[in-house]
Amino acid sequence: MSNDETVLKQKMKEINGYEEALGLIQWDLRTKIPTEGAAYRSDVVGLLSEKIYSLKTSDELKEVIDNVQISTEDPILKQSAKELDREYLKYTKIPSEDYKAFVTLQSQSESIWQQAKETSDFSLLKPYLEDLIAYNRKFARIWGYDNHPYDALLNQYEPGLTTEILDPIFDRLKQALKDLLKRTQKSEVEVDTEMLLHHFPKEDQRAFGELVLEKMGYNFNAGRLDETIHPFAIGINPKDVRVTTRFVENDFRVGLFGTIHEGGHALYEQNFDEDLYETVLKSGASMGVHESQSLFWENMIGRSHAFWESHFDQFRKVAPAAFQTIEFDAFYKAINEVKSSYIRIEADELTYCLHIILRYELEKDLINHDLEVKDLPEAWNEKMHTLLGITPSNDAEGVLQDIHWAAGEFGYFPTYALGYMYAAQLHVAMQRDLDVESIVRMGDFEPIKAWLTEHVHRHGKMKEPLKLIEEISNETFNPDYLINYLTSKYTHLYDC
Amino acid sequence: MSNDETVLKQKMKEINGYEEALGLIQWDLRTKIPTEGAAYRSDVVGLLSEKIYSLKTSDELKEVIDNVQISTEDPILKQSAKELDREYLKYTKIPSEDYKAFVTLQSQSESIWQQAKETSDFSLLKPYLEDLIAYNRKFARIWGYDNHPYDALLNQYEPGLTTEILDPIFDRLKQALKDLLKRTQKSEVEVDTEMLLHHFPKEDQRAFGELVLEKMGYNFNAGRLDETIHPFAIGINPKDVRVTTRFVENDFRVGLFGTIHEGGHALYEQNFDEDLYETVLKSGASMGVHESQSLFWENMIGRSHAFWESHFDQFRKVAPAAFQTIEFDAFYKAINEVKSSYIRIEADELTYCLHIILRYELEKDLINHDLEVKDLPEAWNEKMHTLLGITPSNDAEGVLQDIHWAAGEFGYFPTYALGYMYAAQLHVAMQRDLDVESIVRMGDFEPIKAWLTEHVHRHGKMKEPLKLIEEISNETFNPDYLINYLTSKYTHLYDC
Repeated sequence: MSNDETVLKQKMKEINGYEEALGLIQWDLRTKIPTEGAAYRSDVVGLLSEKIYSLKTSDELKEVIDNVQISTEDPILKQSAKELDREYLKYTKIPSEDYKAFVTLQSQSESIWQQAKETSDFSLLKPYLEDLIAYNRKFARIWGYDNHPYDALLNQYEPGLTTEILDPIFDRLKQALKDLLKRTQKSEVEVDTEMLLHHFPKEDQRAFGELVLEKMGYNFNAGRLDETIHPFAIGINPKDVRVTTRFVENDFRVGLFGTIHEGGHALYEQNFDEDLYETVLKSGASMGVHESQSLFWENMIGRSHAFWESHFDQFRKVAPAAFQTIEFDAFYKAINEVKSSYIRIEADELTYCLHIILRYELEKDLINHDLEVKDLPEAWNEKMHTLLGITPSNDAEGVLQDIHWAAGEFGYFPTYALGYMYAAQLHVAMQRDLDVESIVRMGDFEPIKAWLTEHVHRHGKMKEPLKLIEEISNETFNPDYLINYLTSKYTHLYDC
Repeated sequence: MSNDETVLKQKMKEINGYEEALGLIQWDLRTKIPTEGAAYRSDVVGLLSEKIYSLKTSDELKEVIDNVQISTEDPILKQSAKELDREYLKYTKIPSEDYKAFVTLQSQSESIWQQAKETSDFSLLKPYLEDLIAYNRKFARIWGYDNHPYDALLNQYEPGLTTEILDPIFDRLKQALKDLLKRTQKSEVEVDTEMLLHHFPKEDQRAFGELVLEKMGYNFNAGRLDETIHPFAIGINPKDVRVTTRFVENDFRVGLFGTIHEGGHALYEQNFDEDLYETVLKSGASMGVHESQSLFWENMIGRSHAFWESHFDQFRKVAPAAFQTIEFDAFYKAINEVKSSYIRIEADELTYCLHIILRYELEKDLINHDLEVKDLPEAWNEKMHTLLGITPSNDAEGVLQDIHWAAGEFGYFPTYALGYMYAAQLHVAMQRDLDVESIVRMGDFEPIKAWLTEHVHRHGKMKEPLKLIEEISNETFNPDYLINYLTSKYTHLYDC
């Protein structure tokens, strides 16, 4: 091994060490830390983040990265160097005064957003949003792009994706989902969700959730399940991948589907190839691919007819008396209800992508000077009406609902819809190798997990997202799989 | 503020940051981490420990320390510099090859100890112990001492203490405890502990433990209670001080007295002066003073007649049916049973210090070449017989029971007995200001906690342990307080 390769490995080990400490701190901040302890802990987050930043932006590392990219014959080291180079350029191209000012602005803006949302007062956030968008435009200019400045932002979260690829995909998806939504709305099928809203003790919900996680192949010896307010999964190291969930005692759907969703993320993090453990590649290929794993398990498995055929009896064994009289068909419909609603994170799988497309179109216009921040709430409400047929009664349930923009994140939202589309495309590819429906109906998901590990999980960040999807499915990224899946499921369910 | 003062503060902040991250990792390793995750985490412990080591041993810091010690008028910065200087000298005087070899030997030896203890085979540990003792002798020589090499080792844990001070104290204590033990053994009072060994569900034990912690003044908004195998308390930061305990369902004593003990440590860590938060002085004055806090609450409060007068009814409210018929007097006697036993950590408050004196005498002889490692098991058994009148049937319940020596720690054991003696001396000092017994009988411990905070907690590491005890009690360190306390309690209890 060359000296450069040795130094690269040693630097990655150090970066990973700090990131592992930070990972544990993040988990603790969101699950266990006593209220008064959090303020002090944020200084530690600052210290460790600063260490990682200095390592990743050092001239010493850059030289090593450049040498290794040219000279190494080890594909993992080559890809690691490429990934580190991407980050090096991302951080170092921006003048450090701008970076610091942006970080400060982000944290001020996030706290103002809390206040703006509580009082439904967009004017509080407006000046911050203007500045954050100006910085994003500036960063896009510095990072560079071919056609649209938004491409540079998109590229942060989904390497290789551009508006040129995404525009026609989202247009096609939008039209199909709008049509499908209208058909379900005209349907005479009645869906009653009231029957789901009985008291269900947390500990019993947890028992069923753990059972499902185990069946998915989640390794509890390399993970654990805890409660939190905003559920997440986190790979602290490849043998310590934790799931968190939120149990709502009068609506078990929140905890159960949340657990399965985060379990999908966790399976990804638990199944990287061991060769990647000591590199910067032990992470998902992209935000979108990561989301494809959680959504595949949550929706295509967890909300499927076949899943409940194998699990409805076990569910009823754990559930309280009030659930014992529910009919299977009524239950299956209830957990798949379609309904236009204001809040993205509460949306069903049919309308969800419309919430994302709304944000995508507004983001592009904002970045491209085609929309001014002062006109944003109105533009939001208009689009909401066009896409979902409803108009928010205030900005708290409209433009102020998400933290992302207040945190200065533009280009992030599309990855959620990509996750849906990737999941559907992978689902069909999987069906070529496996009789997925029969497997799910039997209730043993091992072959499904093994397939995902073989094709997705184990590669970590070795491949770019669009290339990975293409290789697995033998086809370029295509929204029709999601459209077909949703059309088939919901025309059947709503008899429309 | 001078430039040196600013740098000193900044360095302490950085050291504290790494230590806070390490603290959280330690807590997690002992409470929550999934089994497979631990091996990877140890690399992070290595990385962060190395950062702290480099900071504490840097020439840059040494220069600042020296300047601040001479020039500052801020007593907190002066004491901080002194403390850092003590650590600088401790680490830098030892050649780094020796330090590394010692650390490696420690970890090998700890793992061999597990095996040696399981098979009760001292010969496995013997060569490691010989090397560890040789290193300890070498370190003592390097660090320097006036009379006995053991003084240099003692000084690591209890600054200012020497064998010259400790020898007569331990001799006096040993004689008094041996006599008292004999008297209780001749007593005709019968103590029945069987009545305590009923099934007591963990969750109910926890409820009572939390109630007691709250009454002690433990702040749950700046702490939490978790389960672990080997209970501990840890100040991750001054507003995040966690207690852990072990609930044994057929012996509630383990969980309850363990919780109170660790709660005593935690009160210390929760109540440092805010001025100390960003320094290296936000820690106990010494191991011995820290132990005085846990033992005071565990024994002088938690095992007192007055405590149970105010808590027996509440205890029975939480306890299962089998406890409802126990008489108060029989219960009080049972939780204060005196009995010679082999295992230190299971010893009662009367015999405990005899276990420590045994180790102290053997350690001194080992360090001073008066005892060879090969003769250690026999020497152990002989001393056990002389002090406690019993002889272990094997080395697992004798010389191999504790990890300390296998971890290379010599000079540490005495601090446990110091904790008992300090606690008794503080108890009497407290009685001059407060009617402690009446307060405990009323069941509201606030004045006691306030007194301890005023006299002990808030000062952190601002004062040397012996000086602190002397200032509070207006008297030099004196073992008679413990002897009087134990004599009074146990002659009464055993009517002897």
